[in-house]
Amino acid sequence: MGRRYETISFLSDFGTVDESVGLVKAVIRDIAAHVAVIDLSHEIPVFDVRAGSLALARSIAYVPSGLILAVVDPGAGTARKCVAIEVGGGEGVFLGPDNGLLAPAVAMAGGAERAFALTNGEFHLSSPGATHAARDIFAPVAAAICNGTDLAELGDEVDAALLMPGVIPLPRDGTNGALICEVLWVDRFGNAQLNIGEDDLSEAWGDDWGSQLRVSFGEEHRSMKIVRAYDDIAPGGPGLIVDSFGMLTVAFDRDSASNRFGIAPTDQVTLARYDDDAAAPKRGTTTSVTLGPRH
Amino acid sequence: MGRRYETISFLSDFGTVDESVGLVKAVIRDIAAHVAVIDLSHEIPVFDVRAGSLALARSIAYVPSGLILAVVDPGAGTARKCVAIEVGGGEGVFLGPDNGLLAPAVAMAGGAERAFALTNGEFHLSSPGATHAARDIFAPVAAAICNGTDLAELGDEVDAALLMPGVIPLPRDGTNGALICEVLWVDRFGNAQLNIGEDDLSEAWGDDWGSQLRVSFGEEHRSMKIVRAYDDIAPGGPGLIVDSFGMLTVAFDRDSASNRFGIAPTDQVTLARYDDDAAAPKRGTTTSVTLGPRH
Amino acid sequence: MGRRYETISFLSDFGTVDESVGLVKAVIRDIAAHVAVIDLSHEIPVFDVRAGSLALARSIAYVPSGLILAVVDPGAGTARKCVAIEVGGGEGVFLGPDNGLLAPAVAMAGGAERAFALTNGEFHLSSPGATHAARDIFAPVAAAICNGTDLAELGDEVDAALLMPGVIPLPRDGTNGALICEVLWVDRFGNAQLNIGEDDLSEAWGDDWGSQLRVSFGEEHRSMKIVRAYDDIAPGGPGLIVDSFGMLTVAFDRDSASNRFGIAPTDQVTLARYDDDAAAPKRGTTTSVTLGPRH
Repeated sequence: MGRRYETISFLSDFGTVDESVGLVKAVIRDIAAHVAVIDLSHEIPVFDVRAGSLALARSIAYVPSGLILAVVDPGAGTARKCVAIEVGGGEGVFLGPDNGLLAPAVAMAGGAERAFALTNGEFHLSSPGATHAARDIFAPVAAAICNGTDLAELGDEVDAALLMPGVIPLPRDGTNGALICEVLWVDRFGNAQLNIGEDDLSEAWGDDWGSQLRVSFGEEHRSMKIVRAYDDIAPGGPGLIVDSFGMLTVAFDRDSASNRFGIAPTDQVTLARYDDDAAAPKRGTTTSVTLGPRH
Repeated sequence: MGRRYETISFLSDFGTVDESVGLVKAVIRDIAAHVAVIDLSHEIPVFDVRAGSLALARSIAYVPSGLILAVVDPGAGTARKCVAIEVGGGEGVFLGPDNGLLAPAVAMAGGAERAFALTNGEFHLSSPGATHAARDIFAPVAAAICNGTDLAELGDEVDAALLMPGVIPLPRDGTNGALICEVLWVDRFGNAQLNIGEDDLSEAWGDDWGSQLRVSFGEEHRSMKIVRAYDDIAPGGPGLIVDSFGMLTVAFDRDSASNRFGIAPTDQVTLARYDDDAAAPKRGTTTSVTLGPRH
Repeated sequence: MGRRYETISFLSDFGTVDESVGLVKAVIRDIAAHVAVIDLSHEIPVFDVRAGSLALARSIAYVPSGLILAVVDPGAGTARKCVAIEVGGGEGVFLGPDNGLLAPAVAMAGGAERAFALTNGEFHLSSPGATHAARDIFAPVAAAICNGTDLAELGDEVDAALLMPGVIPLPRDGTNGALICEVLWVDRFGNAQLNIGEDDLSEAWGDDWGSQLRVSFGEEHRSMKIVRAYDDIAPGGPGLIVDSFGMLTVAFDRDSASNRFGIAPTDQVTLARYDDDAAAPKRGTTTSVTLGPRH
């Protein structure tokens, strides 16, 4: 018997309008009654693997030891593999489709140590149809792992290096030292998180670039300051807040930046030094993106 | 003392915008702290007993032993009975209004063995108003049952044969062997589940009817094949997928059939053999509808 | 060590579209695995402290002993205090921002006995940004309290009398004995709860005012009766139902009063005796508002 687990953190694009999420939890409860399921979110936009992988990456520093079940799976019922990936010497096990969804979070958790395709049907529910892999494969397999089943019993070992990689967009260098960023995520309040942290600016521009940024959305240009609280945004105007994951985020105080600027995930936003359009670029390499690991 | 239970599976039309569902869980937790509540769905369309009874029927093969609490109750506060129904020698107890909501799931669970009207006010919360039966009657009664209260203490025994029956629509015979079906359910992805399984086609048409079906929505006719995975649907075109409950479901690969064809629950969809419009009907009896019991 | 707790009842305006609520639960689970979190609602309208405080006040009579975590916090990351408030000799502890959100529920629970600002950073998560107080302050502090940490360890004691008060609107006297009320809340079914109970009418008008009320929305006047079940509302017409919190609520049987009359929270609704416009007002003092404590 392997290690037992007490918690499954669960993310999906199933919504809660129908009973899909409920059935996954029902199956887990039936097989491993001691397990608590933490819902991270089930409102990932339908089939949006990118959005799901970013939400999982934002979450991973906060989930307890145990299983992480993530299902955004446009290829459900096809030949794409269902996988279990062990990280951190068994501290965590990721379960999900092999479509890149898990990759950024697995990397942030230290990388895959063992990986298995869930090919052993003995641990699956027999099912009248093959379209609900979460209910029929992931849920009973997750419960079995929580009960102490070793991953090696679940199916064929796969080379972690051959798993589908994830894609986290990095900022790119623009002209005159500008940084071409991308909106990663718009939260419920309309704040638009960019794929860049405050440190990345110093790295690109040094420490003497001043406090004012020129932020461009297509043809629109706005001046913004970096702040740490919504209240510190100048009245009526936008600001760049350091959000709870350490990322720069276009925000208004009690208004929606997404609505005000018409920006959505994957949209391009360019940051430049305000008084320094003609300055020579100081930046040669691409910055890495940090998504809020707990220090 | 009767048997104790550890799990309540809970379905309603309360939504999660306000605290109704939360108060039901709070009351249960207060009285029976050892119980886990599994949310099947709370987004059943308001007062839609049919949709609720179908969702419950889809779920019943997957819920753990214990209580099933279902509340879609347009008659809350009126003379309609609140009932507890025992099935499977005490493996399960259904709680809900006596309005047909529970009936299909109770039938799938083997039928009612004992039934009681929840008339004993001793187990109810006193309440400043009579409109929230889930909070004031069902929640404390469910908690009491989980604590070992025998159903007979909850109120007057009622004849299970006199409970309100449920209605699951069966396919009807059309002209030339066609089968007139109904959309049971549209899921989050826009897939439209019909009230017919693959076996029902063979039963009606024999095994030699070919692989192509003519599917009609009002005046619109489309040719479709039966497939087992979304990826197997011809690019751009609709298919009839065998869904996770074993039912034929009008679907596109990564698109919404409901939007594309403008179809919604209760709409009529007709299935016919594609090359065989003139063939004589081979079918005399109405097929039964199977809703995915676990084998 | 102080008292340990097993349950946290949680209300917020975070929605469930993203992982905010999930991360709060993940952090709690990580630190205090024995705790169950009851979601009251996370769909309080964004930044609507009034709506949140009313939902909490409606809930408070039903939540189990333990913690009540409520976060509707337009001032997140600013100087507003995060507080823990003890009530009922330690039966309950409220956690939330000091912005009036908690006040009505605290008052209904008997009033604050001790209060502390959560200034001791030792109990907080270190965080790359200061905008998610629920995840970084309230969740780990709540978990610590559940594990037996005394409130005095969490930060500086504050004078409960100096906490931000809540506002529950009372009915006002109009001309000719009319009562000028306000819509407190519109539920999922479109029922519009007023800030007045049935007893308040007798107190204002005595017992002989008849059964018919004139209910005015701006220029529109309707005659309504007070009823106890939706079925008792005259067919097609509105009624004033005594809702599950004991409050008078404008309702239709299976239709939305909010849609029919175009009324929303904070709108004014005037109640008058139907046949008695010219009668002298019998009422001198303002009635108190009762929000459904369990008897």
